[in-house]
Amino acid sequence: MTGEVHPDISPLAFLLGTWQGTGHGDYPTIDSFDYGEEVQFSHVGKPFLVYRQRTWALPDRAPLHSETGYFRSGGDGAVELVLAQPSGIVEVHTGRLNGTTIDLRTTGVALTPTAKEVVGVGRRLEVDGRVLHYRLDMEAVGEAYQFHLEAELHRVGEEG
Amino acid sequence: MTGEVHPDISPLAFLLGTWQGTGHGDYPTIDSFDYGEEVQFSHVGKPFLVYRQRTWALPDRAPLHSETGYFRSGGDGAVELVLAQPSGIVEVHTGRLNGTTIDLRTTGVALTPTAKEVVGVGRRLEVDGRVLHYRLDMEAVGEAYQFHLEAELHRVGEEG
Repeated sequence: MTGEVHPDISPLAFLLGTWQGTGHGDYPTIDSFDYGEEVQFSHVGKPFLVYRQRTWALPDRAPLHSETGYFRSGGDGAVELVLAQPSGIVEVHTGRLNGTTIDLRTTGVALTPTAKEVVGVGRRLEVDGRVLHYRLDMEAVGEAYQFHLEAELHRVGEEG
Repeated sequence: MTGEVHPDISPLAFLLGTWQGTGHGDYPTIDSFDYGEEVQFSHVGKPFLVYRQRTWALPDRAPLHSETGYFRSGGDGAVELVLAQPSGIVEVHTGRLNGTTIDLRTTGVALTPTAKEVVGVGRRLEVDGRVLHYRLDMEAVGEAYQFHLEAELHRVGEEG
């Protein structure tokens, strides 16, 4: 953290800190799975939040997914999210903040030649006190837009 | 770092570590500027490198740009790069590795509604021993593809 949160993103300051917990994934093309997860939101005094996420297999803690990017304000309750994934995918999301719930949907997805074909992603993040719940829906690899991931994380640190 | 570098990205292992130095930027729409920079490449044992970068103003060290993403191998000397920028931009690059020089060009750029219009970016990274030089060219905000940034960084740590 560096100084005060920029006023443009103060409505998102409830995300700041480190969150850990477990999640569950389903998709028609894969076996259902459970995972551990850590999410960090931090800032440097500029008008964005830094977002870092990683998940691990249970119980062996082998690294699974990770992603990194930035949350921005689009003004008047609009939220923007840009992120990159090591699977060769980048996503641009736009959405809305309502209280401490953020609903996002991709407006752009770009892929490297070796990435799986992701067409669209929706993300809902809800914070209630020290609990962050998210749900991710996805249209990918020929399958319709549908549930893919959800997790419940608990705040473990104030610093991102 | 976590264990051995994955064999798919061992040709990129020369990037691993922390690099610091200074750079210079020009573009028709802005004043020329100099900046300080730190770049980190790390890995977690999976087939990608984690890339983190930040720049700061000289001499006051106020944070300027930052970006974060992942380098992947596309096989047979092909390199893929995905990254996100807090300015609301994501980029997908493909390119080639020749020795310790990587030439990349965007195949996809996606923007949030409030981002500046970036159309295409080219990046060349060259490592010679403990020196990393890069050059970035860009087509953006109505201007033709042209030089935007170059920097010379020196290795300051083996760990990313």
